[in-house]
Amino acid sequence: MAARNDIPYKIYLEENEMPQAWYNVRADMKNKPAPLLNPGTLQPMTAQELEGVFCADLVQQELDNTTAYIPIPQEIRDFYKMYRPSPLVRAYCLEEKLKTPAKIYYKFEGNNTSGSHKLNSAIAQAYYAKKQGLKGVTTETGAGQWGTALSMACAYLDLDCQVYMVKVSYEQKPFRREVMRTYGASVTPSPSNTTNVGRKILADHPGTTGSLGCAISEAVEAATSQEGYRYVLGSVLNQVLLHQSVIGLETKAALDKYNIKPDIIIGCAGGGSNVGGLISPFVGEMLRGEADYRIIAVEPASCPSLTRGKFAYDFCDTGMVCPLAKMYTLGSNFIPSANHAGGLRYHGMSPVVSQLYHDGIIEATSVEQTKVFEAAEYFARVEGILPAPESSHAIRVAIDEAVKCRETGEEKTIVFGLTGTGYFDMVAYEKFNNGEMSDYIPTDEDLARSFATLPKVEK
Amino acid sequence: MAARNDIPYKIYLEENEMPQAWYNVRADMKNKPAPLLNPGTLQPMTAQELEGVFCADLVQQELDNTTAYIPIPQEIRDFYKMYRPSPLVRAYCLEEKLKTPAKIYYKFEGNNTSGSHKLNSAIAQAYYAKKQGLKGVTTETGAGQWGTALSMACAYLDLDCQVYMVKVSYEQKPFRREVMRTYGASVTPSPSNTTNVGRKILADHPGTTGSLGCAISEAVEAATSQEGYRYVLGSVLNQVLLHQSVIGLETKAALDKYNIKPDIIIGCAGGGSNVGGLISPFVGEMLRGEADYRIIAVEPASCPSLTRGKFAYDFCDTGMVCPLAKMYTLGSNFIPSANHAGGLRYHGMSPVVSQLYHDGIIEATSVEQTKVFEAAEYFARVEGILPAPESSHAIRVAIDEAVKCRETGEEKTIVFGLTGTGYFDMVAYEKFNNGEMSDYIPTDEDLARSFATLPKVEK
Repeated sequence: MAARNDIPYKIYLEENEMPQAWYNVRADMKNKPAPLLNPGTLQPMTAQELEGVFCADLVQQELDNTTAYIPIPQEIRDFYKMYRPSPLVRAYCLEEKLKTPAKIYYKFEGNNTSGSHKLNSAIAQAYYAKKQGLKGVTTETGAGQWGTALSMACAYLDLDCQVYMVKVSYEQKPFRREVMRTYGASVTPSPSNTTNVGRKILADHPGTTGSLGCAISEAVEAATSQEGYRYVLGSVLNQVLLHQSVIGLETKAALDKYNIKPDIIIGCAGGGSNVGGLISPFVGEMLRGEADYRIIAVEPASCPSLTRGKFAYDFCDTGMVCPLAKMYTLGSNFIPSANHAGGLRYHGMSPVVSQLYHDGIIEATSVEQTKVFEAAEYFARVEGILPAPESSHAIRVAIDEAVKCRETGEEKTIVFGLTGTGYFDMVAYEKFNNGEMSDYIPTDEDLARSFATLPKVEK
Repeated sequence: MAARNDIPYKIYLEENEMPQAWYNVRADMKNKPAPLLNPGTLQPMTAQELEGVFCADLVQQELDNTTAYIPIPQEIRDFYKMYRPSPLVRAYCLEEKLKTPAKIYYKFEGNNTSGSHKLNSAIAQAYYAKKQGLKGVTTETGAGQWGTALSMACAYLDLDCQVYMVKVSYEQKPFRREVMRTYGASVTPSPSNTTNVGRKILADHPGTTGSLGCAISEAVEAATSQEGYRYVLGSVLNQVLLHQSVIGLETKAALDKYNIKPDIIIGCAGGGSNVGGLISPFVGEMLRGEADYRIIAVEPASCPSLTRGKFAYDFCDTGMVCPLAKMYTLGSNFIPSANHAGGLRYHGMSPVVSQLYHDGIIEATSVEQTKVFEAAEYFARVEGILPAPESSHAIRVAIDEAVKCRETGEEKTIVFGLTGTGYFDMVAYEKFNNGEMSDYIPTDEDLARSFATLPKVEK
């Protein structure tokens, strides 16, 4: 077993070691992610078109495929200092229990009230909205982490925050809703009668409990129909991965401080905000030929966009009103089975992550939910942190890789992203504790049906 | 406003700066806390009597009024390293919003899965139980923080953990219950039919939703009626304050590192585990004539043991089976009104804190619940941490003191204890958000009625 005194349990950077600029991995990508397309013309979205929906500075970040480092404004760095740097934790206890020669580290993003890494981009997006003189922003939330993070950021900046929360989550997760309200956000169950699209859906499907796609459509309509509002999004977009690079930059700085070279880097993947941010600086080194790592994106077997999806242009929302993105997708009308890892239920994947996967820079794997919760509970008991179901996908694979090291005797260094805590996911844990959780993997026929609805885009 | 670069936002001690011994403030107290009395004989409880209920090492700590520093065993220090040191946070944002010249710091104990400082004593008590070769421990929990902390500690040490949870909390806080179950604890709603006292209460009061006093009695019976079990308690006792001194020791080390001298130290007070631990090293300096501080214990106006109670021997439980403690008490059958600050509903107060208050070393004040939640919401929005209702009592008074500084122009340094997070208290926040929260302060007649039941003890 490793001596527990060479590396501290938790590596915290000093304030002056925290990143002063985000890293834009697109600058080092030979094959850039494909541009967003206008769903009407199928032409690349122009800055002007995007600015109708998004803040101007964010549009610039979205379209910038060449600038490697984009300075983090001082106000955002000040906000980051309230809850960052997040610790890079050496999992001594986990290593010992697993009897593995592997050295395991995790970057823990859950030590803030939003409970996840989402705050890193929320404060950035709220800041640029404020800077632009806007009154407020609109967004959708499914599991609730993103909505909570945005509420916190908006409260800090005195910005109005309108959240469309998928109705089933609104009803099943009243505490998440209440956290957002405590931060002054208005939270509307979606579909609602506050938008045209919501009213139409309610008329067509009375009694529906909503979907993320519908909530996106409502939030976009709310943004574009109110003076002084824009829409913001917590994942998928290039700008979000840019902001989330702070995770990877801090991770790399902490590793470098102790001359640690990771062999394997593991992140859970839903829309790609976490894994994209975590791996960016490491991928950058690989793309520049400076280092080599094994990088694994982990997704749920119930929603396997990378491992079983198609790399194609598709709608980002089920309402098919948003721009098209080229990404690994299961089809915008793919409906994952009941799966409590709410943040990993998205049908598509960030275009950046998709391109990196397509080019063979990173690997992907999928895991079943019950195996994920086994790992989550094991981790909670050994390392003392109750992880979010999403994060636990990465834990599962980290443990599996560490066990392989036990078998081979290899002393690999494994780094994974622990994106958040599971305090608002106890209904899922309860199901697991009661032995009532099951796995469901879509059949090839299921996927064929949703692939059939992919839009035809010549490219 | 203060420049934000002289002191970091968060002061983290290095691992080698973490305390290696707990500080026992009793060693420096001229007037020692009065001994626990056997309820039958009214004589001081002997070590042998106490060892029937508590672990041997803990009994020794309970009775030791002279040893100033008690080494923290290496295994406990290793566990502490998983979630400690906790940060001492400079509340730059709060200072700026309040436009106060005061410098505000808070010691944040909520960044662990138990969500509070309770883990500091839970791991110590579980460790000594394990060391003694016991199979498990029993306890009660009201709000749930203590039960969660003990579950985590027991899971880590492979110790059985039996929690009696007040039935109303068991039903209203299913997520708290589920966290404990995830850590492998068995959680029984109290009163239950698993104990004689539980069965008797159920027979006498069918349909009762339980009380902390009843849960204590059940847990004690469960401990003493099973081979290889002992009872553990999360507050009030001398041993608990000893373990919780780690809060104060870390706070003082962090302040000393930057040559900061606090003027005012504020802690919320229920049974005294937090405030006792936070203030111990500072009180020690005062008792030794080395420094002077203003120390304020804050309690709810609905359960004002220090500010309106009597300093007298009383039962620690409503069932009147536990030893008598000399403390500020409202009477063991005092029932506080519906008050969501669950951890501050105890009728009594730690004998150590009581003695310090009686001797004029520390002050006490009480605050009303709605004012507490106003401060909680304000703090959440400004500092980004959603505080526990208990902790928010200290926030309220810290804000009030900082506002006084704004009025007088004094640049006082204020330190308060932020004991935990409010993620499992959203029902209370919802009431506040909906304007449905009210205050209730017991009348003098209410108190006279409960004082009338104080036991007669000649001393």
